[in-house]
Amino acid sequence: MNYNLSFIPARTPKPREYGLTMVMDKGLSMSEAQSLIESSGQYVDFVKLGFGTSLVTNNLKEKVKLYKNAGLRPYLGGTLFEIFIIRGMFDDFVKFVDELELDLVEVSDGSMELDNHVKCDYISKLAKRYTVISEVGSKRADVHIPDEEWINMMKHELSAGSWKVIAEARESGNIGIYNQDHSANTKLIDDIVRHVKVENVIWEAPLKSQQAWFIKMLGANVNLGNIAPNEVISLETLRLGLRGDTFFQFLPDELK
Amino acid sequence: MNYNLSFIPARTPKPREYGLTMVMDKGLSMSEAQSLIESSGQYVDFVKLGFGTSLVTNNLKEKVKLYKNAGLRPYLGGTLFEIFIIRGMFDDFVKFVDELELDLVEVSDGSMELDNHVKCDYISKLAKRYTVISEVGSKRADVHIPDEEWINMMKHELSAGSWKVIAEARESGNIGIYNQDHSANTKLIDDIVRHVKVENVIWEAPLKSQQAWFIKMLGANVNLGNIAPNEVISLETLRLGLRGDTFFQFLPDELK
Amino acid sequence: MNYNLSFIPARTPKPREYGLTMVMDKGLSMSEAQSLIESSGQYVDFVKLGFGTSLVTNNLKEKVKLYKNAGLRPYLGGTLFEIFIIRGMFDDFVKFVDELELDLVEVSDGSMELDNHVKCDYISKLAKRYTVISEVGSKRADVHIPDEEWINMMKHELSAGSWKVIAEARESGNIGIYNQDHSANTKLIDDIVRHVKVENVIWEAPLKSQQAWFIKMLGANVNLGNIAPNEVISLETLRLGLRGDTFFQFLPDELK
Repeated sequence: MNYNLSFIPARTPKPREYGLTMVMDKGLSMSEAQSLIESSGQYVDFVKLGFGTSLVTNNLKEKVKLYKNAGLRPYLGGTLFEIFIIRGMFDDFVKFVDELELDLVEVSDGSMELDNHVKCDYISKLAKRYTVISEVGSKRADVHIPDEEWINMMKHELSAGSWKVIAEARESGNIGIYNQDHSANTKLIDDIVRHVKVENVIWEAPLKSQQAWFIKMLGANVNLGNIAPNEVISLETLRLGLRGDTFFQFLPDELK
Repeated sequence: MNYNLSFIPARTPKPREYGLTMVMDKGLSMSEAQSLIESSGQYVDFVKLGFGTSLVTNNLKEKVKLYKNAGLRPYLGGTLFEIFIIRGMFDDFVKFVDELELDLVEVSDGSMELDNHVKCDYISKLAKRYTVISEVGSKRADVHIPDEEWINMMKHELSAGSWKVIAEARESGNIGIYNQDHSANTKLIDDIVRHVKVENVIWEAPLKSQQAWFIKMLGANVNLGNIAPNEVISLETLRLGLRGDTFFQFLPDELK
Repeated sequence: MNYNLSFIPARTPKPREYGLTMVMDKGLSMSEAQSLIESSGQYVDFVKLGFGTSLVTNNLKEKVKLYKNAGLRPYLGGTLFEIFIIRGMFDDFVKFVDELELDLVEVSDGSMELDNHVKCDYISKLAKRYTVISEVGSKRADVHIPDEEWINMMKHELSAGSWKVIAEARESGNIGIYNQDHSANTKLIDDIVRHVKVENVIWEAPLKSQQAWFIKMLGANVNLGNIAPNEVISLETLRLGLRGDTFFQFLPDELK
């Protein structure tokens, strides 16, 4: 911090097991990626190259190298995995990952249907060579997944080899763990937290209100994902109680 | 594409007659414009210098040159045409266009009332020296234009010399071809498509849901406008079926 | 302007007493700050380093110098003042301001409760060494402040030494002087304008509709704050009647 203050929660240091921030890159230019690194690289653990953007982005290999050299781990968004799988091109997916020299992959079934056993097989297979994160939840508003099933899938996928599971919200934040009005689906989230180790879940939280809600509920070091590149610093202030929304969160009672 | 995949729709190559993407520049700096070119220049056909921003932007001539040299055609947003016309300064408008060495102009009547015959006269006059695109639809929520009139104006303006007609939506996407809740005015759009050659229409579609809607309805190469500079790559993934919203759009039935 | 037009309202020149634009910097990188300066520095009077972002931003001193050298006055957002005050660290606040060589400070009570007399004492004390602006209004939706109290606080704070008072709206623009639906609280604003010199008020107006509303009501040179860095040029077009929303605002009747 640029000035020493009391009552600031301790943040886990890099490389983090918990307290993770995952940023969504939807096609940043090299100079924009450089800008992200310069301004807030130390707060960013992962950079997700969102959905299929990696297929149409210029200078992809250079950007991947740039992130890696700066200690930000880039990876291909889960939709890209599905884009290959639905075409029956699993081996090509692995080839693409290797060409980019990535060490982290995401497995998801947000767009296509994938039996959870099949998904877990992919996770096991990939976990032998890469760190795997897997995403639970549909991108479609009309698909309702019962709470028990969220929990079961998360447990199965962690057992199959996922390092972390991601709870789906899309970039718009009105799906999965959120209601249509962007508010948190508290019952579902409570249920997940009671049954899955919270350090193992990354919550997609694209909106400030969602980020503040999770920090108040699960602490400064909650894992959060789908953060916009220009919101990383703002998120860090929320985590540390340095913004109105979490101003009182980490203060002792006598100061409240 | 950075990896060869099957079932990806063919995109028209530059210089495009169809499959156009028009980006809205509301005052990008030189380095931001450079960033747009570097990351996604090949997907951008036109850059609209939105409303009156060209009058107050620094380094305007340099930015225009930068875009032109990179194969992106810049032009002055229609509101600027109206700003000159309402002051009786048509000749000055032409002078400003020539000073900037632009070869594309937009004629519109979104802010001021302009009899369609007068508008078509301007189009004819300008079409002798420039490529003309003209915009149909009001920027005002309280002005209702019947469907037949949309169609008639589009036909007249194309006959008068417009290369393409633009269907108005504003930067906010809740006007003209859209309802107040940003959903598509399907009846109006259906009517237009039945009567005007779809290759000749550019649909303003600032929101992702709107872009996906048009791609599903009219294909990967539908002409879309008012795209934010940092959404060009995302739009390209929608066009190619590389994002959740259009994931199944271009797949054969046996893979669905 | 890049072309001479008639019926463009005169803008006050820098350094401005009125016609102020305050930009919200939530953690720009050096190159993004440079970009803001290059594209629209002459339209920006102040740069607020929002809430606690200054504590976690890299290259803070360099960025402050960059802004100052370019004639944009940077200052620490009011929430930072409150972060120090609630910890009983007023002297440290002053030390931090001095280390950064800032000449402008903001005093606010948007997150914590502060008796107005105490707040005015801080204002008086700081006004001996710095230009002070103070913010009125709560960041919390559940705190209702009666109109008379808004006016009284503004008057007291100006008497205590505030150069300008800021009317609270948050970055989201749905608090304080705005209703939950982002529309202006016209009764409150009318009341303020009747009792406080309008040149002394800076209205937070993050949304375009809010900026246009104030320009129509109070003229091209109304003081506006919480402007996003990439909206400065757009705001300037609104101020000058160069965008649809204010197209007719400064035209003589015979042209309307």
